[in-house]
Amino acid sequence: MSAIRHALNTKRENDFAQWYQEVIAEAELAEESGVRGCMVIKPWGYGIWERMQRLMDDRIKDAGVDNCYFPLFIPLSYFSKEAEHVDGFAKEMAVVTHHRLVSDGKGGLVPDPEAKLEEPLIVRPTSETVIGQAMGRWIQSWRDLPLMTNQWANVVRWEMRTRMFLRTSEFLWQEGHTAHADRVGAMEETLRALEMYREFAEDVLAMPVIAGEKPENERFPGADATYSIEAMMQDGKALQAGTSHYLGTGFAKAAGISYQDREGQQQLCHTTSWGTSTRMVGGLIMTHGDDDGLRVPPAVAPHQIVILPMLRDKPEDAALLAYCEDLRKALGARQAMGEKIRVLLDKRPGKAALKRWGWVKKGVPLILEIGGRDAENGQITVVRRDQLWNEAGKVNFKAMAREAFLGIAAGELEDLQASLFAEAKAKRDANISRVSTFEELEAFFAPSKKYPGWAEVQWSRPTGVQLEEIVQRLKALKLTMRNTPMDAEPVSGACIFTGEPAAERIYVARAY
Amino acid sequence: MSAIRHALNTKRENDFAQWYQEVIAEAELAEESGVRGCMVIKPWGYGIWERMQRLMDDRIKDAGVDNCYFPLFIPLSYFSKEAEHVDGFAKEMAVVTHHRLVSDGKGGLVPDPEAKLEEPLIVRPTSETVIGQAMGRWIQSWRDLPLMTNQWANVVRWEMRTRMFLRTSEFLWQEGHTAHADRVGAMEETLRALEMYREFAEDVLAMPVIAGEKPENERFPGADATYSIEAMMQDGKALQAGTSHYLGTGFAKAAGISYQDREGQQQLCHTTSWGTSTRMVGGLIMTHGDDDGLRVPPAVAPHQIVILPMLRDKPEDAALLAYCEDLRKALGARQAMGEKIRVLLDKRPGKAALKRWGWVKKGVPLILEIGGRDAENGQITVVRRDQLWNEAGKVNFKAMAREAFLGIAAGELEDLQASLFAEAKAKRDANISRVSTFEELEAFFAPSKKYPGWAEVQWSRPTGVQLEEIVQRLKALKLTMRNTPMDAEPVSGACIFTGEPAAERIYVARAY
Repeated sequence: MSAIRHALNTKRENDFAQWYQEVIAEAELAEESGVRGCMVIKPWGYGIWERMQRLMDDRIKDAGVDNCYFPLFIPLSYFSKEAEHVDGFAKEMAVVTHHRLVSDGKGGLVPDPEAKLEEPLIVRPTSETVIGQAMGRWIQSWRDLPLMTNQWANVVRWEMRTRMFLRTSEFLWQEGHTAHADRVGAMEETLRALEMYREFAEDVLAMPVIAGEKPENERFPGADATYSIEAMMQDGKALQAGTSHYLGTGFAKAAGISYQDREGQQQLCHTTSWGTSTRMVGGLIMTHGDDDGLRVPPAVAPHQIVILPMLRDKPEDAALLAYCEDLRKALGARQAMGEKIRVLLDKRPGKAALKRWGWVKKGVPLILEIGGRDAENGQITVVRRDQLWNEAGKVNFKAMAREAFLGIAAGELEDLQASLFAEAKAKRDANISRVSTFEELEAFFAPSKKYPGWAEVQWSRPTGVQLEEIVQRLKALKLTMRNTPMDAEPVSGACIFTGEPAAERIYVARAY
Repeated sequence: MSAIRHALNTKRENDFAQWYQEVIAEAELAEESGVRGCMVIKPWGYGIWERMQRLMDDRIKDAGVDNCYFPLFIPLSYFSKEAEHVDGFAKEMAVVTHHRLVSDGKGGLVPDPEAKLEEPLIVRPTSETVIGQAMGRWIQSWRDLPLMTNQWANVVRWEMRTRMFLRTSEFLWQEGHTAHADRVGAMEETLRALEMYREFAEDVLAMPVIAGEKPENERFPGADATYSIEAMMQDGKALQAGTSHYLGTGFAKAAGISYQDREGQQQLCHTTSWGTSTRMVGGLIMTHGDDDGLRVPPAVAPHQIVILPMLRDKPEDAALLAYCEDLRKALGARQAMGEKIRVLLDKRPGKAALKRWGWVKKGVPLILEIGGRDAENGQITVVRRDQLWNEAGKVNFKAMAREAFLGIAAGELEDLQASLFAEAKAKRDANISRVSTFEELEAFFAPSKKYPGWAEVQWSRPTGVQLEEIVQRLKALKLTMRNTPMDAEPVSGACIFTGEPAAERIYVARAY
């Protein structure tokens, strides 16, 4: 058992951004692809995303939402119909103008001028327009409502500054789109999706979040209301990890989504949309990573337990491998958190101690090292990723009988899941402060403070010019308003921006 | 129980192509999207695809292949490196040339001339080039081999004539890409993937296929050998439903995929690629559909059993619904084919008989209709989709005690799965004929024959000009050579094309 600490080169407290890049590289989550702003998601990173997908998809299906698939390309004219929609965010998009390549006569290829599209196609930045068209065809009567669809897809937004998982030109997401008979039904769905995201973030990702309504200036373009879940990263910044929009009847009007009600009258539908993306992987890293790499909550760990046989390239290895294979099967037949335990027996060549550090950096919840003597004695040695070091500064391996470990393995995984959540929640709660005046806000976010956290303020929720002024004052401090929590206590006193009577609480923070 | 037959308008024997379109529309599998060549996959069609994905993905993971995700966009220059690759098939591609839209000053939008990309990006038609680049980075030593990756992704090939599921500009697929130390390892993987596809097609899709090697002229551009699974559709045409390629060292050379062997020498890797796509949904339709719509094999049916309560909009409905809900739970707790039975209780408003025809056209394996009296007596009424009509020409409903049905439900699903396969295999085998001369071949495919099937011939496997001549002679008859089966009996006698001694058997057919 090596006592050498193979931590990362960069510590979180020294350079959080550099640490983040290092975790992604060292845990082999993703890498630059050579295509501007697009990443390659490597097996460990993609395995985590697949786990997220499956557990989110179960929840989406349980809510009675049907998965569909809509085209990657959207005709340019669809965007012109939605002027407000486009003005908001969607001008930076990948535009397809040709459908063929030809030789340039110099050994290279160029777009064929003879094969120019009559109408350019946009690579979808989101699918409201094209799904709206389909809903217009599918919905005739009140009997067709609610219509609830979701798709898992790649989308492209041409980003100038990209950061892996957090902001990439191409990313993977799910986008739910639903149509309802009235405001009540649509608002119910908007808030159901929000609560699904909150529960998913906290129970699956072990990432505490605030579910709440975004201020008007942060609404999805064209939405009547936008809700989000906001998580605090270990540098105190906020990450918007999922959004749910009540779109009113604006999108329905543009796309012609209407129905005949029970009285035979034609009515516009009320629509919603809601999404989460590969950004959640970034959130996971910045919530649970430590100075030794990633720590993956067991619910989304592709391997929850890795078994490392201490192979010696000798005939005795056969008995050791047989013991480990048997252990793998016994563990894999047990359940943790309602699913079979996911166990890998890592038989690759190489020293167990070296391989161990690879799995530590990847954040596998439980790592077992098994030597020849362990096999003979029916023992195992195990270290828990969230209890990696003992007080003597050595790797915190514990030896125990095989049967004893089989008995506690599921409980250890469940405890680790709960511990990661509790640790993250304690850290977050310790870094939220109530602030009563704008001066206090400025002091709270003083440039000298490295990772200040979030301020909870009271405000009067103004609109128009007054709101714009607040947004600009905050922008000068590199701050944004995040959201107004759903379960906030009532307020009294004055708005810290306007001095008028406060209407609600809202979080103010630096953000990704 | 209505005796009216709600069959489709078109029968298979009258117009197979029209029938195919009608099944897709009536079973609500997919529809045109308004975007040229791209379809919208609707919930029932996508549900079938999701089942295919999950069961294929299990097999891919079991083989030790890791899922990854690679960029949608491929720089144009990557294609220039692969001249042969491009000449073969890939010139018709979607080309991204701009990354921003601007107002055209007339209320519309146009690509921004200020935002022209320095290098155009191609929407991936397949990912050999970009995955090859990554493999070049990831592989250093023999210890890194084999490297086995797969991705589930959308790809785009600009098709002039499209047909839903069979040939669309955008389609969904999985593409496996692997790198090996030598030819033996790569060929083993090529054939493993081929066998995985055969087993999947036959055991999961209940679609009999011939697994074999494609003739040289049908190889994937740049491949040393291409293998396929070929299925016979009910009009006698062949459908290539999956391919597996041994790429030799050509792609490795172009992408720089090399490794240091145990002796310290630098060696090129041998690579493979293999793929299946949403085309399989088209194959499923044309293999199992009948004149009443689709019949979905239970293994891929999103709902294996649908329960239709005969609601009367009266207070008694409550007891009926409670009975049905209880039945749904009891069925859903049971297993068929190693998984929980997937049951839907269809509570939508509307007459049960009308809703029944919707599910018949969608091809649900077992449909239950439950009336108030059934509920009182603890009975159910069931019809099996592959035994829809009785001898009197009425819907073949069978009444039985609830407990009796619970006892046989799993067996009925498994039997239906086996029956669909047996039926399709009998049909296919009856439509393959051995043909000994070119004249017999011409007679076999005489224009007067509507659905001639496949001819099995012997040939000498010539190359070069001689092969090209054969390809052209077949093309004049609208025929292609499909593949040489892996398990073919030895041959004797003469090649039907050249008269030279035959080397192997090969199938000749019209094809999708």
